[in-house]
Parts: sequence; structure tokens; C-alpha cells
Amino acid sequence: MMTTPTTPYEETALCANLGRRDGRLLFAGQDTVELARQYGTPLYLMDEDRIRYNCRLYTQAFNRCLPAGSRVLYASKAAAFRQMCRIVGEEGLGLDVVSSGEIYTAMTAGFPMERVYYHGNSKSDRDLAFALDAGVGCIVVDGVEELLALEAEAGRRDARQKVLLRITPGIDPHTYAAVSTGQVDSKFGVSIETGQADEFVKLALGQPHLSVAGFHCHVGSQVFWEDVFERSVLVMMAFIRHIRDTTGYLPEELDLGGGYGVRYVQSDPAIDIPRKIASVAETLAAIARRLSLPVPKVLMEPGRSIVADAGMTLYTVGAVKEITGYKRYVAVDGGMADNPRYALYGAKYTCCNAGRMDEPGDMLCDLVGKCCESGDIIQPQIHLPAATQRGDVIAVCTTGAYNFSMASGYNRLRRPPVVMLQNGRSYVAVKGETLEDLVRLDM
Amino acid sequence: MMTTPTTPYEETALCANLGRRDGRLLFAGQDTVELARQYGTPLYLMDEDRIRYNCRLYTQAFNRCLPAGSRVLYASKAAAFRQMCRIVGEEGLGLDVVSSGEIYTAMTAGFPMERVYYHGNSKSDRDLAFALDAGVGCIVVDGVEELLALEAEAGRRDARQKVLLRITPGIDPHTYAAVSTGQVDSKFGVSIETGQADEFVKLALGQPHLSVAGFHCHVGSQVFWEDVFERSVLVMMAFIRHIRDTTGYLPEELDLGGGYGVRYVQSDPAIDIPRKIASVAETLAAIARRLSLPVPKVLMEPGRSIVADAGMTLYTVGAVKEITGYKRYVAVDGGMADNPRYALYGAKYTCCNAGRMDEPGDMLCDLVGKCCESGDIIQPQIHLPAATQRGDVIAVCTTGAYNFSMASGYNRLRRPPVVMLQNGRSYVAVKGETLEDLVRLDM
Repeated sequence: MMTTPTTPYEETALCANLGRRDGRLLFAGQDTVELARQYGTPLYLMDEDRIRYNCRLYTQAFNRCLPAGSRVLYASKAAAFRQMCRIVGEEGLGLDVVSSGEIYTAMTAGFPMERVYYHGNSKSDRDLAFALDAGVGCIVVDGVEELLALEAEAGRRDARQKVLLRITPGIDPHTYAAVSTGQVDSKFGVSIETGQADEFVKLALGQPHLSVAGFHCHVGSQVFWEDVFERSVLVMMAFIRHIRDTTGYLPEELDLGGGYGVRYVQSDPAIDIPRKIASVAETLAAIARRLSLPVPKVLMEPGRSIVADAGMTLYTVGAVKEITGYKRYVAVDGGMADNPRYALYGAKYTCCNAGRMDEPGDMLCDLVGKCCESGDIIQPQIHLPAATQRGDVIAVCTTGAYNFSMASGYNRLRRPPVVMLQNGRSYVAVKGETLEDLVRLDM
Repeated sequence: MMTTPTTPYEETALCANLGRRDGRLLFAGQDTVELARQYGTPLYLMDEDRIRYNCRLYTQAFNRCLPAGSRVLYASKAAAFRQMCRIVGEEGLGLDVVSSGEIYTAMTAGFPMERVYYHGNSKSDRDLAFALDAGVGCIVVDGVEELLALEAEAGRRDARQKVLLRITPGIDPHTYAAVSTGQVDSKFGVSIETGQADEFVKLALGQPHLSVAGFHCHVGSQVFWEDVFERSVLVMMAFIRHIRDTTGYLPEELDLGGGYGVRYVQSDPAIDIPRKIASVAETLAAIARRLSLPVPKVLMEPGRSIVADAGMTLYTVGAVKEITGYKRYVAVDGGMADNPRYALYGAKYTCCNAGRMDEPGDMLCDLVGKCCESGDIIQPQIHLPAATQRGDVIAVCTTGAYNFSMASGYNRLRRPPVVMLQNGRSYVAVKGETLEDLVRLDM
């Protein structure tokens, strides 16, 4: 329990795109209270310049440190809508997609399909057929059944589909359990430790309509410890050597999954992504030398670290409730429908009263939503100014990842619009739902 | 950890609308494997006859045991779409709504608006204006700020709006923390214990454009212990007596919130709802006599117990993955996007292989979804037949509540259709999303 009052301004040191002016919170240099007035609340804001900056942290480090043909894939699931595809496409990234819906989004945004990698642990025949017809560049095959189903679909088209094989390296990434996927007993991929990966690779190499470009592993997102990637490299390169020795096959691509952790609160470490990538590259080069292997093309799949701190959600306060002797609630006009991450993971967020940035945060309260459910908490035990009242604008920072993309229609609340901020202007990237939209599919 | 193999058929004793024929699971008498083929998967099924049966469990007991004018309100948030409004409307229930979206759904379904009660802890001025313009019968006022905002809106229209006042009785209902709302420190309502409810009632009685019909309390859903309602009655009637003594005001309506618990798995108790209601009515009559008060009209707000066991979700298996020496996964074509309840609450479900009902459930496995997230679990540690394979249809029972209504667009998965089963026929109540629907609001 945090009990020291803090001034909200301290929190604006979280990310370079936050600031204040005349007691107002600025995001990407723009007045958030004014944006709330203009577009209404709840409102997802995204800072296009920050998205591009985050992309370049990866791409520039990749260009500097890794073999030609290495590529950064944006993990679309973090925030999947057409304008995001366009922005990361312009920055030269590829796309990691996980469903026909994400493929369709990329296609209709004009994203170059050869740069699309299609993931997922339970792709149906229909999913695979859709991906082949869409011209998806690479399919990351999760297991034996999918391998055989894909071979059959590709055969039917007399095509030769590029694939990566998803391998489970057996590493616990020390992240949220829900986003940790690299340990032996993950639902994803095929395990090295059990010997099943060996068989999987041999089976894949024998399929006439599949071209195995390499291996994929993913140890989990929100990774703060660099040794997790470096341990992945160690395990995967040893596996590559073993496969080469036993089959003669040498993969061209090694996809390490994604991505680095993001600061949600001041106490989270700030990560120097270019330095981390340089360090992974060095480790990889050293291991390759030791194992007498060429350095493979490296792929990484950042999602959260591309968009999280480029996003912010604005709400309007509906009620400030003091239960004398117990606690205080500040209730806003959104909640777990637009941001389920506290309800799901106990996720941490930095929150401020966007119009009272010069006032001390001397009121301990729970920031809660308007859903009819006690679990609808955005963030418990935060400090807001004591004068916070109905009508004030509350900003929740670092909501660019897994907020819009996880939004539900719970309580038939309308999904908020996504408004992009770019170089002093703002534009709608995703329209907000209307009441008519809510019943459009109801008979 | 459940380790005794069970035959799936044992599980069909869960609810009377489950059965089997020729090794197939029947729902509402219809072959689920056939329904999966006809409509595709994932698929929400709802048994209209069971919905009506569940409604009548409440309405008939109400008619028998409680004063005229008492009413059952369907808690729309459990499953809010137009056909649901029509069905419960035909059964004579009122509607508990929690948003402009739910009001709009009811309106456009032709639901009689005078039977609508509007809840929520953070209603904006716009929400209140919308409710007044829609002719919502009663607004359940959650606190002082809302009271004053509503008085202003009603005054502007020179209307007199019927309201209930939401009171927090200070009772812990022994249910999931996330759906427990009656304890003193709830975000909902105004507490009796702190003395704030007294002030709230007095303030409300003085508002010229509000007509206070009575009080509302809600101790939480998924209630199994009848004494929770009876304790609510005790606390609320004592409060009513106190208010009458201090102000002279006598409420006509007492809304006890809702509703009774639902069996998700065999080990959950089966509740005799009519007997429970009779018992609450007896308690109420006895307390009223003791306190020399008339018995108020009673309202209850069941949602889950109206729709949960009237619903089922069908999926198709995409992968059966055995991690030798560790565990087995059965992965399907839906998951936390269409049913986030295990991810949110660790909710329990009964699951079967709909096409292998005669085979023993001798394979211990985790039933997981297709979302790119390890937390995407539908139900861990269940038993399915060992022959379960890609292409099989899996049924998850008792998904009628808080599945469709909580569905998200995570991973850009399409929201499944809702198909109603009625007297041997089936019809679409909510159309499934198409790929075009997913990008309709993307610029």
C-alpha cells in the first residue's frame, strides 16, 4: 500500500511524451483536457510520433547489430487496427498476426503480405486456407496437426509455403504468468526437452509443400531481464547445431519472439532497448562462433514496447465517493470494458487528474469503472488531488497496448474511439461505437 | 486436482436440458454436433424454453408469495441482446439495465420502458438525459452527485422521475470477490453503517423532481446461501423502520438485487429457487410484523440464474498436444475472447466432447483457447475421452451468462453468433461478426 502523497507531476517523468502546462496534462505536447472536450470520453489517445520512435529503437539497432534480412515484426495483437498497420509498415517492420481477423486488417490496410508472420496454437483448416489465399509470407507452425493440415492446404494449391517451426525452449521468463509462454509445459510450440521438437523438425523437413525457413520461440512478453533473450539464444542455437548435425538442415531465420518490458509506473525499470539488442547480438555472434554456425537472420516481435507508452486513456469522473472510515472511490465513465488489464492481471498504471496537475496527490483512492461489477477496478490505491470531482478528466497512462485490442462490449458500453496525435494535430484512427453499432447484429 | 476419470455422460446430469443420443450430446433435445456443423464454431447456443422456464421459477413464486406489484427484473448485463429483451418481456419480467447501450437495446426491442430500472455507479449527465428521454421507468440512484445531477436533468424537463436509492447494507455474500457488492466498502450505493445513507435519503426526499419509490440493495450475484437475502431483508427493513421513524417516509418498493447461484459443475449445489423465494417472503412478512411495517413490494434482479444454464458454447478442436511427461492441452477455436470468465475469476465449467459421449473421460487435460496468451484457458484439469482429436466438437456447458456479454475482440477474433433453440427448431438471435465487421470502424 502506497501511502506517501505524491504530486501528479512526478508521474509525468514516466515517458518523454508526457508534460504539463498551466496545471494541465500534456500528451504528445497536446492539452489532454482539451482533447477530452473535443472527442468526448472515454477516449484512447495514441502518439503517432512515439510509435514511430519506438519502432526505430528496434529497427536502427537491428540494422546496426544483426545480419541483413533480420527483421522486427510488430505484434499486432497489442493494438490491431488499420492505421497501426500502415504506420509500422511505413517504418519497415513486418507484422506478427494471430488470426484471420488480423490478417484481414493488414490486407485491407495495404500492408505488404510477404512481411506477415502468422502465429497461433489452434489454427483451423479455414484459417490456414485464408492465410494461404491472402498470401501471408510465413506461417509459424505450432505443432504436428497444424503442420499436416497446412501441408494438405498448400498441396491443394500446388504452392510452397514458407514456415517457421515454433519451438518451446523451456525458459521461465519471470513475467506475468498469463503472458509467459516459453516454459516446457506451454500450450504453444513443441518442446526441445521432451525430444518432441526433434521429431517435429524432421517431419516438417519432409513436407513437399512447406519450406522451413527456421525456428521461432517466444518466452513471454513484458521481459525486463536481458538474460531471458540471451538464454533463448543459447538454447535455440544449441538446438540449431543439434538439428544441423542430425539432419544437415541449417535454418536461415531465428525468431526470438518479443519484446522488451514497458514502464507502467515509476518503479518499473527503464530499458535501453538498443543496448539490449546489441547485447543479444553479441551473445548470438559469440555462440555462433563457439558452435561453428553462421549467425542466422534474427526476428523479434515487439508489440507492447512499440505501442504501450504511445497510448493514454482519458475518462471523465462520474462520482467521488467517500465511505467514511473505510475508503474513497473515484468512479469514471469507462472501466474493465475498455481496459480489463487490472481485472485480468492486477496490472499497474500511473493515473493523474489531467486538469489538476499542479495540485498535490493527497487523496488515496481506488480508481474504478462504471461496470456493474466490483472487480471493475482500473487501479486501486492511487493518489489524486483532494479536489477531484465529478466532471474532472482522469488520464491513465501507458494504455497503448492490450487496451483497445482487449476491449469488450461488457454492459453494452460503447468501445471508445482511437485518436492519433501527430506533430500537434489529431485525427481519428478508429471511430467510436455508436448505440446503433451495438445492436447492429441483434435480430 | 481432479484425478478420477469420469464418463462425460455423468456431467449431463447438470441441467435438465442436457442429454445424449447415439454418443452425441443433446442440448434442448437437439444434436450439438449437427448444430456445430450447421452454424459453424465457435457458437453460442441458448435454449429459449429453458430461459422461459427459469423466468417462471421466479415469477410464479413471486405471484404466490409476495405482495401485488412485486416484480422480477432480468439483469440484462448477464446477456444483453434484443431477443433476450423480447423473451423476458413476454414472460412479464422487468429489466435491470446498466448503460445507455442496454437502454437502447431494450428500446429497439420494443421492451416496455416503464418496466426498466437503470443501475450504475457512474452515470454521466448524458447517460441520465438519455434515460429520461427514453422514458426509463425507474432510475436507481447510486449516490449524492448523481442524485443532484438527475434532479437537475428532471427539472429541466419539468418531469418527476421515479427513483430507488441504492443502499449498502454491509453484508459479505461469500461469493466471488468481483461480484460481491453489498459490503460496507463497495463502490456501489451509500452505506447504512457510516450514517451516510440517512443523509442520502433525506436529501433525496427533498428533491422536487424525484419521486422516491424505495430502496435498492444488492449483496452480490452467484448467491448460494439463502441467509444472505434474509439478512438483507433484516438489515433493510430495520433501515426502513428507522427512516419512517425519523422522516415519516415509507418506501413502497424494496429491491433486493439478484439472484440465486447457478450450477456450473456437479459439485455446485442445486438450488430450489421457488422454495428460497418463499422463505425470503416468510422472513420478510415476519420482520414486517415485528417492526409494525407493511410488507413492501419486492423486486429481485436475477440475471445469471435466468440464462446461465440456458446457454452452451460449442468449439472445434484445433490441436491436441501432449507434452510428454508434463501435460496435455486440447486447444479449440475460441477462448478468452468469447469466454473470459476463467481468466478473470477462475470460473468453473463442465466440458464434454460432444461427439464422444459414450467414451470414458480418461484423458486429463487443460482445455485452452486460440488466443496468443498462456492465460487463455477455458478450463484446466478436465477429463475428455482419450480419442479426442482435431475436428472434434467440444461443448462447454452453462455459458449463457457473462459470455456473450463479456466477449471481446481480442486477437481480432470474430464474436460468435447466438443461436436460439426452441421446441426442436433453431434460429439466429445475434449474427456472428464477419471479417468486414472487424474493420468497419477502422479508418
